Amino acid sequence: MVFYLVGLGLGDVTDITVKGLNIIRRCKKVYFENYTSLLSFGFDQTQLEKFYERPIIEADREFVEQKLKVLEESLNDDIALLIVGDPFGATTHSDLLIRARQIGVSVKVIHNASILTAVGCTGLQLYNFGSTVSIPFWTDNWEPDSFFEKILINLNNGMHTLCLLDIKIKEQSLENILRKRNEYEKPCFLTCSQAAKQIIKIIERNKRNLDVNADIFVVGIARIGWDDQKIVYATLQQLAFEVDMGLPLHSLIIPSFELHPLEKEMLNSFSFK
Amino acid sequence: MVFYLVGLGLGDVTDITVKGLNIIRRCKKVYFENYTSLLSFGFDQTQLEKFYERPIIEADREFVEQKLKVLEESLNDDIALLIVGDPFGATTHSDLLIRARQIGVSVKVIHNASILTAVGCTGLQLYNFGSTVSIPFWTDNWEPDSFFEKILINLNNGMHTLCLLDIKIKEQSLENILRKRNEYEKPCFLTCSQAAKQIIKIIERNKRNLDVNADIFVVGIARIGWDDQKIVYATLQQLAFEVDMGLPLHSLIIPSFELHPLEKEMLNSFSFK
Repeated sequence: MVFYLVGLGLGDVTDITVKGLNIIRRCKKVYFENYTSLLSFGFDQTQLEKFYERPIIEADREFVEQKLKVLEESLNDDIALLIVGDPFGATTHSDLLIRARQIGVSVKVIHNASILTAVGCTGLQLYNFGSTVSIPFWTDNWEPDSFFEKILINLNNGMHTLCLLDIKIKEQSLENILRKRNEYEKPCFLTCSQAAKQIIKIIERNKRNLDVNADIFVVGIARIGWDDQKIVYATLQQLAFEVDMGLPLHSLIIPSFELHPLEKEMLNSFSFK
Repeated sequence: MVFYLVGLGLGDVTDITVKGLNIIRRCKKVYFENYTSLLSFGFDQTQLEKFYERPIIEADREFVEQKLKVLEESLNDDIALLIVGDPFGATTHSDLLIRARQIGVSVKVIHNASILTAVGCTGLQLYNFGSTVSIPFWTDNWEPDSFFEKILINLNNGMHTLCLLDIKIKEQSLENILRKRNEYEKPCFLTCSQAAKQIIKIIERNKRNLDVNADIFVVGIARIGWDDQKIVYATLQQLAFEVDMGLPLHSLIIPSFELHPLEKEMLNSFSFK
């Protein structure tokens, strides 16, 4: 039997591929890793289960430990694990693939759209993107900035940078952890505005590269692949303090300083002012 | 009415999304840019038209000139343009999007899987890919090598490089052009072996970087997303002279010298020998 990694794409329930849908419908069990994120991405459980004609089993944080069990189930039955976007967009799943090989489970991947390529809708050439960075939430006493170095490397080499913004799902407060209460904080999503503010702070701290300042033009993107997706081309300063990108998920692109005329023309069509 | 750019994904006819299929079925006309490539990618016309319940109109090389006409059709009817992979994988379609905006046509994009993210199945972390390069066919008197500089930049910055290999579709021989005969050469696809040989030649010419030689390990990939996809981790030398990747399409990955242990472990599972 087969263990399927099925990508769901970016938008709604109908963004699954026909192949993926057919597979889910004939699988014995359908798991979803970190179920809460599914809902946060705009999917609704009842709607999904109706469309798939299958119950969805929440595979939680603790799924890491369950994985072996789930893999072993695929020795006897077809099992599907659902993943928002493309199965490899956010993680390589290498541990799972290696383990599957060890115990003789065959794995098939059903690819789908990912934010990593959907950003092409900004008009920026996908070939010119350098490495992708993740921008974390800052706290009062933890302000990590190592991602900024990668942005500078991309800029220095004429490459765009896609910045994925932090998501906090099923986090527990220190108090709840200490009291061993199974209560979780509300999901949190870093906004373009917050990310832009953090980048401006980093720029102000290390003034090595004078070309990179709060007046550089960046691209805020929100809800890509949804009907109400939003793309705004504005300065870091504007994105931090003036632009409202609306509901999550947001991402941020730092375009190369060397734009192709068609890239420039497309970006201008998304100008804030 | 709407002009739809619909991604078909990577494998077969069922890799279209449910959303994309529903849209195609209700569109007045369905175009495919450069139809021959569709067939070369493993799609079959009869099968597609049966599945879509729609005739497919070949929008040819000359489509560039037809675009305006097709866009104008979407002022009155829903029109779909099919694209292998994700609509933005290989091109930004910026000219089309800008023109649509000028004449008041609304455009919607149906995203899908692209080779740019599907390469995650090698175990290489997508976040660490630098800019993508295209490796062209060499001829007796034309051996372009500018792509190699980009590979070096990525390597120097710890990034992987995806190399897309040249495709020649609907090319005319000089003789046929001169005689104005509408006869085309057979489609040609650059193989991993040919690409590896070309890179070895470039390395032998400019011996600036001694770390980059014919013994570096690279990843040959073929028919990604298909049932018979093939991934081989081998040296450039082996890929050039020993490995048979089989039928097209091939691509080549030059991994960073700085691999994560899990990346390394996954690649080793694809070792040639």
